Amino acid sequence: MFKDSLGRGARAVDAHFAGVLGGVDDLPVTRAMGYAVSGGKGLRGWLVLESARLHDVPRDRALWPACAIEAIHAYSLVHDDLPCMDDDDLRRGRPTLHREWDEATAVLAGDALQALGFEMVSDPRCHPDAAVRADLTLSLARAAGARGMVLGQALDMAAERTTRPLTLDQITALQSGKTGALITWSAQAGARLARADLAPLTAYAERLGLAFQIADDILDVTGDADTVGKAVGKDAARGKATFVSLLGLDGAKRRAQTLVTDACDALSSYGAGADALREAARFVISRRT
Amino acid sequence: MFKDSLGRGARAVDAHFAGVLGGVDDLPVTRAMGYAVSGGKGLRGWLVLESARLHDVPRDRALWPACAIEAIHAYSLVHDDLPCMDDDDLRRGRPTLHREWDEATAVLAGDALQALGFEMVSDPRCHPDAAVRADLTLSLARAAGARGMVLGQALDMAAERTTRPLTLDQITALQSGKTGALITWSAQAGARLARADLAPLTAYAERLGLAFQIADDILDVTGDADTVGKAVGKDAARGKATFVSLLGLDGAKRRAQTLVTDACDALSSYGAGADALREAARFVISRRT
Repeated sequence: MFKDSLGRGARAVDAHFAGVLGGVDDLPVTRAMGYAVSGGKGLRGWLVLESARLHDVPRDRALWPACAIEAIHAYSLVHDDLPCMDDDDLRRGRPTLHREWDEATAVLAGDALQALGFEMVSDPRCHPDAAVRADLTLSLARAAGARGMVLGQALDMAAERTTRPLTLDQITALQSGKTGALITWSAQAGARLARADLAPLTAYAERLGLAFQIADDILDVTGDADTVGKAVGKDAARGKATFVSLLGLDGAKRRAQTLVTDACDALSSYGAGADALREAARFVISRRT
Repeated sequence: MFKDSLGRGARAVDAHFAGVLGGVDDLPVTRAMGYAVSGGKGLRGWLVLESARLHDVPRDRALWPACAIEAIHAYSLVHDDLPCMDDDDLRRGRPTLHREWDEATAVLAGDALQALGFEMVSDPRCHPDAAVRADLTLSLARAAGARGMVLGQALDMAAERTTRPLTLDQITALQSGKTGALITWSAQAGARLARADLAPLTAYAERLGLAFQIADDILDVTGDADTVGKAVGKDAARGKATFVSLLGLDGAKRRAQTLVTDACDALSSYGAGADALREAARFVISRRT
């Protein structure tokens, strides 16, 4: 089942990460880095491992970019949770990093996790061909930076400071940076490692990323904090435009469903080999956490 | 003279950076990124350009890593100045980024600058050979991360939380991470671009980096904020161990002088071609800002 496969992936990434961190001095920052990376669903790392498997890339290579994307994702959550950003106390069902340690440790651990992400994709053990490593690094930097994830964050911040609610196009652009860029990179990674065509996995991931965010907006309305593992109802409380506020709950559910169907169809050239990725897409909109 | 050469390098890096940022959406975060990178001495970028010139690397290639290291350095200053870290209001003679904008913009702009640094060294325009780009990226990630600059920051933070003042060995280790790692990478960059021996520039830069930090400690005691462009006297006020508190003012000056002599000697294999780097080393301990 998909959830078992996801769990196995997360454990493999955790173990790999522990090995990498083992070479670093034991300091609060280092322990905080391990804390930040653990305890999540590991969807992005799993997407890397699965797209690598689809291209017959050895798992010991794929673990490097899988771990890298989880490090980048974790750093973004740690910084996003800071008091000056979203000011969250709960993440993955545990205290956020700055609550467990302090703000300075959270800033530093996030910074070190970002550097470590780039270190892992440029490590020769990730791939013997430097052209593949350089390609992984360049695409990851673009996905993480001011044209990708940080752009999404910046658009989100700008939206919170205006009284005009966002349009559907604007929210879609915001989310394609904030969540979409890393999810797309994750799904592409296997094809990049194998120097294969990126188009099918890109089309799949763009739809998956958007469906994922719509599901997040739905959970913010229908979920409870204990199950979801983070604060819920914050967007509605702030009067923030979301996919649910713009499309209605049923409309948002239908849109997510269509996106998942399209995401699965985009993988037709892979045949049944891509069934796990299809199952993941269906899971993303049925999840409760 | 060296100061003119430094100024020309900084202007070239600024112009290159403006070109790179020109392709990014115009948002507060983007403008803050430009603000953070400008206004400094540009020593790290200059070291990249000069070590590249020494190896006959075309300047239009060297500008990529020069700009990358200034972006990484700028991000570290922006995060270091945050209220939860050093809580500084003044940097490079202007308000720190979180004073000019706000904390959230400072966190995000710093994060985006780090990603942009890695994007620039993995850009094919930096070097046509992917092996060189992958090498620049891996070494930059190590220099910036939890074994390099962030390690230095973390050791510094740990030191502020203990009542036991650091020993000379501990301060040297701390500074070799906090300041030394990026300075060493900068001086090595030209040799990396040319796939030449790293040893002479590494020996030079390790001594230069330490001399630079000793000079910083001296300025913290002897300089005034208007000239230095940032707060001074903070270390002494906090009772923090520095090279000056451990070696005395004269002892610190002598140690810096010896390091500069050794740094210059390390470049003997380059002959007179490395005179500009030697002049830079002498400048570093004579500077007033």
